[in-house]
Amino acid sequence: MTMLKDPSVKYRPFPQIDLPNRQWPSQVITKAPRWLSTDLRDGNQALIDPMGAEKKNRFFDLLVKVGLKEIEVGFPSAGATEFDFIRGLVDHDRIPDDVLVQVLTQSRQDLIERSFESLAGAHSAIVHLYNAVSPLWRNVVFGMERHEIRAIAEAGAKVLRDQAARHPQTKWHFEYSPETFSTAELDFSIECCEAVMEILKPTPENPIILNLPATVEAATPNIYADQIEYFCRNLPNRDAAVISLHTHNDRGTGVAAAELGLMAGADRVEGCLFGNGERTGNCCLVTVAMNMYTQGVAPGLDFSDIDEVIQTVEYCNQLKVAERHPYGGELVFTAFSGSHQDAIKKGFAAQEKRNDQIWSVPYLPIDPADLGRSYEAVIRVNSQSGKGGFAWVIEQDQGLKLPKRMQAHFSKHVQELADELGRELQATDIWDVFRKAYRLEDGQRFQLIDWDEAKGADNTRIFAGKIGVDGEERSVSGRGNGLISSVTATLADSFGVQLEVRDYAEHSMGQSSDARAAAYVECVLADGRTVWGVGIDEDVATAGVRAVLSAANAA
Amino acid sequence: MTMLKDPSVKYRPFPQIDLPNRQWPSQVITKAPRWLSTDLRDGNQALIDPMGAEKKNRFFDLLVKVGLKEIEVGFPSAGATEFDFIRGLVDHDRIPDDVLVQVLTQSRQDLIERSFESLAGAHSAIVHLYNAVSPLWRNVVFGMERHEIRAIAEAGAKVLRDQAARHPQTKWHFEYSPETFSTAELDFSIECCEAVMEILKPTPENPIILNLPATVEAATPNIYADQIEYFCRNLPNRDAAVISLHTHNDRGTGVAAAELGLMAGADRVEGCLFGNGERTGNCCLVTVAMNMYTQGVAPGLDFSDIDEVIQTVEYCNQLKVAERHPYGGELVFTAFSGSHQDAIKKGFAAQEKRNDQIWSVPYLPIDPADLGRSYEAVIRVNSQSGKGGFAWVIEQDQGLKLPKRMQAHFSKHVQELADELGRELQATDIWDVFRKAYRLEDGQRFQLIDWDEAKGADNTRIFAGKIGVDGEERSVSGRGNGLISSVTATLADSFGVQLEVRDYAEHSMGQSSDARAAAYVECVLADGRTVWGVGIDEDVATAGVRAVLSAANAA
Repeated sequence: MTMLKDPSVKYRPFPQIDLPNRQWPSQVITKAPRWLSTDLRDGNQALIDPMGAEKKNRFFDLLVKVGLKEIEVGFPSAGATEFDFIRGLVDHDRIPDDVLVQVLTQSRQDLIERSFESLAGAHSAIVHLYNAVSPLWRNVVFGMERHEIRAIAEAGAKVLRDQAARHPQTKWHFEYSPETFSTAELDFSIECCEAVMEILKPTPENPIILNLPATVEAATPNIYADQIEYFCRNLPNRDAAVISLHTHNDRGTGVAAAELGLMAGADRVEGCLFGNGERTGNCCLVTVAMNMYTQGVAPGLDFSDIDEVIQTVEYCNQLKVAERHPYGGELVFTAFSGSHQDAIKKGFAAQEKRNDQIWSVPYLPIDPADLGRSYEAVIRVNSQSGKGGFAWVIEQDQGLKLPKRMQAHFSKHVQELADELGRELQATDIWDVFRKAYRLEDGQRFQLIDWDEAKGADNTRIFAGKIGVDGEERSVSGRGNGLISSVTATLADSFGVQLEVRDYAEHSMGQSSDARAAAYVECVLADGRTVWGVGIDEDVATAGVRAVLSAANAA
Repeated sequence: MTMLKDPSVKYRPFPQIDLPNRQWPSQVITKAPRWLSTDLRDGNQALIDPMGAEKKNRFFDLLVKVGLKEIEVGFPSAGATEFDFIRGLVDHDRIPDDVLVQVLTQSRQDLIERSFESLAGAHSAIVHLYNAVSPLWRNVVFGMERHEIRAIAEAGAKVLRDQAARHPQTKWHFEYSPETFSTAELDFSIECCEAVMEILKPTPENPIILNLPATVEAATPNIYADQIEYFCRNLPNRDAAVISLHTHNDRGTGVAAAELGLMAGADRVEGCLFGNGERTGNCCLVTVAMNMYTQGVAPGLDFSDIDEVIQTVEYCNQLKVAERHPYGGELVFTAFSGSHQDAIKKGFAAQEKRNDQIWSVPYLPIDPADLGRSYEAVIRVNSQSGKGGFAWVIEQDQGLKLPKRMQAHFSKHVQELADELGRELQATDIWDVFRKAYRLEDGQRFQLIDWDEAKGADNTRIFAGKIGVDGEERSVSGRGNGLISSVTATLADSFGVQLEVRDYAEHSMGQSSDARAAAYVECVLADGRTVWGVGIDEDVATAGVRAVLSAANAA
């Protein structure tokens, strides 16, 4: 690798916006914007394999289901696939009454006419006219002066007006994009928009949508917000326009630009699910919507079954939603680190105890359940995990709530296994090592066959049991102050096994009437070693007896 | 899917920061910050399969190569893998003189001591102490009051101070993170940092690093910038501290938060390559660095061979860099759309003509060559592509520069194929359909075997050739004003094929002395059809003859 040459010879900083008394940094988003999905247009045109009719229809249905009310369905003049799909939506009456479909067109009479043709008969629709206005495009792509560029917009607007008049059975809405807005002179963008408005004559009741694209993201997101605030302040007849944002993600800040743009006064956001779109993608609608959601603002879009959404989007786009994509990625609600797992566990417990509705759990900015994800997926165990993680897994999977000191005891076994395997541990790995560590497998020295208990005259307990010892059945008994001590007395008297019980805990597993019980016993052996025994049984007393035998098997 | 319930019952908006006379929105990033990679710590702990020693060493070498001067290498007290790797770096003298390694530790005496132990003998190092300070962590995770939390930080700082004194052979630096800074009360974070500073006594010459984590991203990025500006303004002894940013990406705005945080006065950025890290990941260092680069600011990090970086990162993390990840993703310099392709093509041409160094190409915010990517990868062809795209591919791959009107003619063939196949077209697909459309394949009616040319007395040209006709060799001749017309005359006289030439173009292919030439001829047939012929040959005149025969084969 050679060091990059000095970029200052090749790149220039983006100029700042002269915006005295800037307001947006003190604003807060308090209500949902209008949303437009351009998955079927900007998203589709950026796919390695663009969608065919079947995928387009499936995606359209998903968008409707999720709650999108404005859907850009394609570029009808671009080819047969596009045109036919859009006609199919109209002809087969697949557009719900409260959904506006939108089509994109360049500013050429034949293309605009073809676009209207694709929609003839629709109850309502948006025709979206664009032309690029920035100096680079004017100079390099078109070789045109400002007034020629404005004339392109005006010519297109006139065709829109006339075509709309010719198809009065549809309620037409218009959108105009001064494309490459974010790299154009603000005053010229306003000039073009104004020229289009003069022809289309929008009103507050019938506003035009003015969409302001960061066609290429070329500056920090605060600059885009400055541009939006400037535009909103200086556009004449502002209340006859819906200001729409269309950000891209070349600098990784497309979501931020959309959010700051809303704070700066915009009304509408265009984007794609999971940020598909040209190059680095469009603004991710899922992220912006769920960001609002976690701030107590209803986004009006429904991602409560995010896995279903992901499945369809991945199928249609043939692109995977990245593991760390906000809200949707496979790993975004996962904690491997021990301290994180511990904090989350405490958060869930506190949440349950508090018994209010406010979500407040460490490391989880949103309740995974709100996206249809379960808690169990949250905590996963690898060599970076501590006690909290496997304890959670054991509790979720097996219903065992290990006492604190036993967690510490068991953690060494888990850590060793994680270091040895060098990979994430599955729940089955953890359960295997647990059964081994606490001798829950067959082939142990002492096995409980049957037992009974009697009360002695002095209020002591007498344990009488049949115990398999190295495969041979023995009837043995012993006496103690309680069940556990009567079993340890039996083991000492009959087999010479000395167990000093230091701690004992038990709990039922699950809530049904046939639930089993688990018992845990911490014992000190004659040689000073500390061992834990575990017993599981339908009967809670039997679980205790088994736990002591499990400890004895370590002796 | 059921509509999500009203989030306002469950989530609360993040409070705004009281920051009168806010300065950061008017600031610009003009120099690179100090960078810290936490790929081997925050990144590693979030992997499904954490790195073993081999991967860690490979990643460390990559980070050094890329130019990182501060590298967090692990959490040495967390386990043997971590500790041994760090000791290995020291023992095998693998840390360059100008690189500071950093280790993370909780604030417990034994853990801190173990951390110093892992680094004993290093020439210099940063020990990074943290404890969480926000109300949620205080209440739910620790059950502690503010003063107890501050005492944890103080106790740790004292151990740092004492351990450093005990290991004077190493130049120690200290970093303190009030973890969960972004969701904590600013004054309490400052209080904890101040308390730590009082113990460690940093100076402007020996500053402490104060790292301010958005452990969980919980608000729009402007709020984080407000927090940073507030902190910088209100921290006593500000010039004895390096203010460090550590953002996460839960809301998809981790890069934006880091950028706005730098504008707000921070000096240092922590993150991971391609945004690996807990949950949604850390701030992506590649993106922040290259964002600076495209603004003319040298980032001090070298991603000029980005594919090599990606290869190593994907191998070590076992996670793919997403297709649309800024700068690194497979598709981020790709344009499928025809109008985009056309604009890019014009941009490249203008760039070449201008002959200055300033990069200015539509849709490409950075020269792909600065990342070691080639132009050819930029343009790909699918059903959304227009003429610009395949013309580019044909030119890049075959050296053929099709005349404008021929591009229009050929585009129908490409469009049909794209619609038929429903997938991205490979260069070979396009070449196959080209050879078929312009009859460059074997088995055509007319085939050139040999030819010669003579000048007539009246300055006309006489073509004399051997032509294979349906497999049979024929010697024929004809006369015209030039070569092309003498060939068409021959075809008319000898075979009754009427071709009216409308356009003719030729160019050499490549620049070497043995370069071949290509010729294109547009003809109108007797039946009014327009056909194009193409000829390729080492000799430019022969290419012209072949082009006419190619047109004749369409007749």
